[in-house]
Amino acid sequence: MTVSSPSLSELLRLDDGVLPAACPSRIVLDHVTSRWGVLLLGVLSEETLRWGELRRRVQGISEKMLAQTLRVLEADGFVRREAQPTIPPRVDYSLTDRGREIAVLLIPLMQWIVQHAEEIVVAED
Amino acid sequence: MTVSSPSLSELLRLDDGVLPAACPSRIVLDHVTSRWGVLLLGVLSEETLRWGELRRRVQGISEKMLAQTLRVLEADGFVRREAQPTIPPRVDYSLTDRGREIAVLLIPLMQWIVQHAEEIVVAED
Repeated sequence: MTVSSPSLSELLRLDDGVLPAACPSRIVLDHVTSRWGVLLLGVLSEETLRWGELRRRVQGISEKMLAQTLRVLEADGFVRREAQPTIPPRVDYSLTDRGREIAVLLIPLMQWIVQHAEEIVVAED
Repeated sequence: MTVSSPSLSELLRLDDGVLPAACPSRIVLDHVTSRWGVLLLGVLSEETLRWGELRRRVQGISEKMLAQTLRVLEADGFVRREAQPTIPPRVDYSLTDRGREIAVLLIPLMQWIVQHAEEIVVAED
């Protein structure tokens, strides 16, 4: 692992606590790592998807949570929502450049977890 | 970004949904990316800390959530809890090898967020 300057401590502001409670980093971290946020960013990292496809791919997400999470990720500039002028109307969801930047960092984390989850959970049984 | 075989789709099981709802990956992902889990792993990635230090570093965490999150991370094998035979007794918390593996993947994500959070949140005001 290589950490470029400024140092990790400086970046995470460890002196006065990791990501001080009131700072914007906490807000964005909560959005990106929310249960559904991370899965939506993961699934959109591969392709543009429509509402129904998103619901199917992200198993267990409710209509309400899908709408809410997409709204948050769109407001943060991670997800682009494009209404297509088709009949019937169609809405496409895709990652913005910023969304792809964060997805590139999330994917290795998700891969590690997929590869190790079984041994972690089994050990607890 | 380099993705080694098996492919990302296979790893994330995108065919039947990103990380199927019932699979262990979802459970571990929830633990690692929980609001307090990610911050505790981040702060412990730098050094061994005691209870009081953890409470101070991770601003806003309650006694209850600190106990609960540490218990989960310990059960998953990410965090090691060591009671020192000192007077007064002291308990040290540190990352295991597995904890360091996941921290290495979380840190770049946290760094990106710290570096970009301001512009993301400001844009929404």
